[in-house]
Amino acid sequence: MTVSHLAPATRPSTTDCTTVENLSIGQYLIRRLQDYGIADVFGIPGDYVLGFYSMLCDSPINVVGCCREDNAGFAADAYARLRGMSCVCVTYCVGGLSLANSIAGAFAEKSPVVVISGSPGVSERINNPHLHHKVRDFRTQLEVFEKLCVAAVELNDANTAFRDIDRMLDMAARFKQPVYIELPRDMVKVVPTNSHEYRQSAPTTDPDALGEAVNETCRLLKECQRPVIIAGVEIHRFGLQDDLVALAEGSHIPITATILGKSVVSEQHPLYVGLYEGAMGHEEVTSFVEESDCVLLLGESMTDINMGIYTAKLDPVKCVFATSEQLRIHHHHYHNVSLGDFIRELKNRRPTPPQRVMPPKPSAESTRYTLRADEPLKIMRLIKRLNQSLDDHTIVISDIGDALFSSTELTTHGKTEYICPAYYTSMGFAVPAALGAGIAKPGMRTIAIVGDGAFQMTGNELSTIIRHGFHTIVILLDNKGYGTERFLHPGPYNDINPWQYAKLPAIYGGQPGYEVRTEGEFDRALSEAWNKPGLSLIQVHLHEEDASTPLRRLAERLSKRV
Amino acid sequence: MTVSHLAPATRPSTTDCTTVENLSIGQYLIRRLQDYGIADVFGIPGDYVLGFYSMLCDSPINVVGCCREDNAGFAADAYARLRGMSCVCVTYCVGGLSLANSIAGAFAEKSPVVVISGSPGVSERINNPHLHHKVRDFRTQLEVFEKLCVAAVELNDANTAFRDIDRMLDMAARFKQPVYIELPRDMVKVVPTNSHEYRQSAPTTDPDALGEAVNETCRLLKECQRPVIIAGVEIHRFGLQDDLVALAEGSHIPITATILGKSVVSEQHPLYVGLYEGAMGHEEVTSFVEESDCVLLLGESMTDINMGIYTAKLDPVKCVFATSEQLRIHHHHYHNVSLGDFIRELKNRRPTPPQRVMPPKPSAESTRYTLRADEPLKIMRLIKRLNQSLDDHTIVISDIGDALFSSTELTTHGKTEYICPAYYTSMGFAVPAALGAGIAKPGMRTIAIVGDGAFQMTGNELSTIIRHGFHTIVILLDNKGYGTERFLHPGPYNDINPWQYAKLPAIYGGQPGYEVRTEGEFDRALSEAWNKPGLSLIQVHLHEEDASTPLRRLAERLSKRV
Repeated sequence: MTVSHLAPATRPSTTDCTTVENLSIGQYLIRRLQDYGIADVFGIPGDYVLGFYSMLCDSPINVVGCCREDNAGFAADAYARLRGMSCVCVTYCVGGLSLANSIAGAFAEKSPVVVISGSPGVSERINNPHLHHKVRDFRTQLEVFEKLCVAAVELNDANTAFRDIDRMLDMAARFKQPVYIELPRDMVKVVPTNSHEYRQSAPTTDPDALGEAVNETCRLLKECQRPVIIAGVEIHRFGLQDDLVALAEGSHIPITATILGKSVVSEQHPLYVGLYEGAMGHEEVTSFVEESDCVLLLGESMTDINMGIYTAKLDPVKCVFATSEQLRIHHHHYHNVSLGDFIRELKNRRPTPPQRVMPPKPSAESTRYTLRADEPLKIMRLIKRLNQSLDDHTIVISDIGDALFSSTELTTHGKTEYICPAYYTSMGFAVPAALGAGIAKPGMRTIAIVGDGAFQMTGNELSTIIRHGFHTIVILLDNKGYGTERFLHPGPYNDINPWQYAKLPAIYGGQPGYEVRTEGEFDRALSEAWNKPGLSLIQVHLHEEDASTPLRRLAERLSKRV
Repeated sequence: MTVSHLAPATRPSTTDCTTVENLSIGQYLIRRLQDYGIADVFGIPGDYVLGFYSMLCDSPINVVGCCREDNAGFAADAYARLRGMSCVCVTYCVGGLSLANSIAGAFAEKSPVVVISGSPGVSERINNPHLHHKVRDFRTQLEVFEKLCVAAVELNDANTAFRDIDRMLDMAARFKQPVYIELPRDMVKVVPTNSHEYRQSAPTTDPDALGEAVNETCRLLKECQRPVIIAGVEIHRFGLQDDLVALAEGSHIPITATILGKSVVSEQHPLYVGLYEGAMGHEEVTSFVEESDCVLLLGESMTDINMGIYTAKLDPVKCVFATSEQLRIHHHHYHNVSLGDFIRELKNRRPTPPQRVMPPKPSAESTRYTLRADEPLKIMRLIKRLNQSLDDHTIVISDIGDALFSSTELTTHGKTEYICPAYYTSMGFAVPAALGAGIAKPGMRTIAIVGDGAFQMTGNELSTIIRHGFHTIVILLDNKGYGTERFLHPGPYNDINPWQYAKLPAIYGGQPGYEVRTEGEFDRALSEAWNKPGLSLIQVHLHEEDASTPLRRLAERLSKRV
C-alpha cells in the first residue's frame, strides 16, 4: 500500500517524474513552488535578494510587498492555512531574522511556509569579510532557522541544489511546517550541468501496523457505549476534513473540536457538539466528552490552551490518539501509520458503535441577538451580533487575548474558515494574516478581530490591504491596554498609549474607520461594512474591565502560575 | 599591571567585592543591572515575565513600554551606545524571537544590550508539555540567542544563578556585545541558600607583550613621514575618546574616522581630516589617508561599507591594527593586549613623528548654506541646512539608505552624538533608537533621519516618544519607495504605498507634522521644530531620482554585485 500524506491542495501537479534541463537554480525554485500551488510570494526586497526578486517578477508568481518582514511571515502563514502552502522571500539577516517570530509560530502551529532568503554570494565569502548584514559568521542565519524550521538548507552547490530544493518542499508538504532555503546571490542564475529528475515522494504506511491498529480501534468502538471524536488542527492542515466527516457520519459518532482546530468541521453539522476546552468550556460539552468511554483524538494537539490549561480529563485508557507524528492506543504505540490512512481505513470499515444521544443544542432563544441600541457595547454582545452575520463567504481571523477567547463563542458555517494562533499566541497575528487571506482567497470577506495592544504592533499592514482593495473588516477591541494581562497580573505596564485608530486607514489611503461605543453604533457600522468593498476599521471602545466569559475562566486558571 | 577593559560608564560602582544575602534571583539581577548604570529597561510584558515586571516596577529601575519588541531592542541598542549598557525585558519566544533582528544588529555593531526573557517555570516543564509560546522545545529560544549574543544562560539553578548573572553582565561589559539571560518564572523569587560575593573582573594585559608592541609602534612612528590615525567605532564603545584625542594631540597625528564611528572625535577638532570611505569618499581625504606611511587603525571595524565597499587601499605593511579582539602590526600579532591599554601606553610615551601638513579644510564658502526659498528641496541641500543648525546639545540618528549616506556629510560638534547602523544596516533603526536616546539623555534634542520605507516598519514608536514628551525631530525622506534599491536594481517591488505621514503624530496624541517640498518650507519647519518641545515630524517630499553624492558613488559600486 503506498499512500501519500499530502493534502490535495499541496500535491504537485506532476503525477510521475519529470526531467528538467537548462533551468537555473532560481528558475527551478520558482517552478517547483508553483507545483505546490504557490501563486503568490510575500516579502520585502533587499540587496542580497534583488536578483531573485527580478526573476520572480518575470515569472507567473505574484510578488506581494509588505510593510515589515514579520508581517510578511504572518501573511504567508495565513495563506498556507488557506491554500496548503506558501512562500515568503526576504534579504539576508535584517530580513530573515525579522521573520524569526512569525516562522516560529508557523512551526508551532503546523503551517507550511517556505522561507527563501537571499545571502552574500559564495564567491564573496572568501577570507570571511565583514559584509553588511552579517552577524557572527555567514552561517548564523541558517543556524537560527534550523531551530525554527523542520528543515533548512543553503544552496551553495549547483550539483545538489535541485535535490535540496525538492527535499525542502517535500518536507514542508509532509510535515506541514516551515522550511528555510538560503540562496546566495551568485547562485541564482547558475545552471547545473547534471540532469535532474524530480519525483513526488511517497511516504509509506506500514500496512500490517495499519491493519492491526484499525482492527483494534474498530473493536474498541464496537465494545464502547459512548464514543466521541475530538477533531484537531491537523485535520485542517492535512486536508482530512471530508474523510473525517465521512467517518463520523458513517459510524454516527459525535464530534467536538478544540480552539486551535475550531472550524475544522462546520459548527452547524448535526453531529457537532461544540468546542471542548476542559474546565474552561461549556459545562455540557465538557461533561459529554469526559463521560465518553472511547475518545478518538484525531490530529489533535494537546496544548495548554486547547486542553483548558490542562483541566481536560481524558483518561489514556479510553483514548485512541492519532496525529501526523504518532498513533497511540491506550498505552501502546503503532509506528509508520499516517494519520490520513488511519482515518480513511477506519472510515472504510464503517464501525458501528452504539448511537449516542446528542447533548441539547443551545436554544434558538439563547443564541438570538436582539439589539439594545443605546446600551454600551460589551465584548460578549459584540460576538453575538457578529455571529448573526457570519456566512459561507467569510473568513474569521482572531488575534490573541480576548479577541481569541471571545471568538470561541462564534459559530462557524459550512465554509467559514476560522484562523487563530491559539497555541503560539503571538500578538499582532490578525492584521497581517488578513492580508494573507485576501491574497489567498480574494473573493471572500475577511473579518479580523484584534486588541489594541496587538494592533499597535502590526496594524501598519492595513496599508497593504488598502493598496490591494480587499474586502476586510477589522474589529479593533480598544480597552487601552493589554487586557488579558490585566486579568492575570495588574500593573501600570499593561496600559498603553491610546491612538485615534479610526483615523488610521485614511493615512494609508483608505476610508476613515468607525468609532463605536454602543450596540447601535456597532450594529450600524458592521452592517455598512459587511457589503462595502475595501477595508473598514471599526474601533470599539470597551470598558477596561469588560472581558468575555471564556477569558474570565482562563485568567482565573493562568493567574495562579504567573 | 592589572587594568580594565571597562569604559567608565559601565564600570560597576563597587570598588572591591560585595557580599549579598537574602536577595532573590530577580532582586539580585535588578541590583546588578544598576551597578552597570542601567536606570531604564525597555520591553513589553507577557505572562511568563509578569512576575519579574512587577519586581522591576517596585525597584528604582524605570520600565519603558514600547509598541513592539524589536523596537524595544533598537531603543535599548541606542541607549547602550549613549550610556554604556542597556537592558530589554520581554516574554518567552513571541517576545524574545521578535528581538532577534535588533539584537543581531547590536552584536554586529558592538552595543552591549542585556536581553532578559521570562520563560515557563522549571517545574512546569516536566513531561515536555505543549505550553503556549513554545516552538520546538524549551531550549529553542536559548539556542537561537547563543547565535546572536556573546553569551547566553538560563537561570535554572539557584546555586549558580548569581554567578551566571555576574558572568553575563561582565561579558557584556568586556565585549560590548549583547548577552541573553533566560529567567524561568518560578525562579524569580527564589532566594539561593549559598552566600555569594561578587567582584569586578579585571581582564589583564600581558605587560611584556604590551611593552614590545608599544616600542615597535613608537619606532614605526619615529621612522615614518606621514602618520595618520583611523579612529573606529570601538573608540566610542569602549569609552576611549579622551585617550585617543590625547594621543593624537600629544604626538600631533591627524585623525580620520569611518562611517560607523563617525563622531568618535569631534569633526571640528583641528587634527580631524574628514571621513575616510575609500573610493566612496572625498578625494582629498582618501589621498591623505592612502598616502600615509604609518596608519594606526584603532578600534576600527573593517566592514564593506566602512571600507568603501572594499575600495580602501591600506597596505598591511604600513598598518598598526588594534581592536578589542586583536593587535596586529604589519603581519605579526600580539596577544593579550587590550585596546585601551595600548592606546594609553602609546599616549604616555608621546612619540614624535614628523608633523604633517593637514589637508585644506573645505572653505567657509563651500559649507555655507544660503537659502533658495522656492527651490524644490534636494537631499544634499537638506543636509547642508541641517548642518547649519547642529550644536552640542543634539544627537543625530540616521536610519539606512540615503538617510545614512547623506548624513555622512554632516559635521558633528564637540558633544554631538551621531548614531547609525552603518554595518548591520537594518531598516527601521532610527525612530525606535530616537526613543532610546530620549530615555538615555532626556535633556538633549534628538534628530532622526529616516526613509519612508524604513519608517513604515517602525514608525509606530513615535507613539512612545510622544507619550514621554521628548524633544525629537523626525526628518522623513519621502521618495515613495526603497530609494537605495532603486539605484541598485530598479523594479516595481521598490515602490511602496504612500502614506500621509505628517498626519500620523496626531493619531498618537501629538501635534500634526510638517509637509515640505521647498527649501523655504523645510527651513521654516526645522527652525520652528528646533526649539519646540515634544515631537515634530517633517515629511520631506523628494524626487524619486534625487540621491546624495555618497549614495550615487556607493550604488555604482554595489550594483555590480546584485
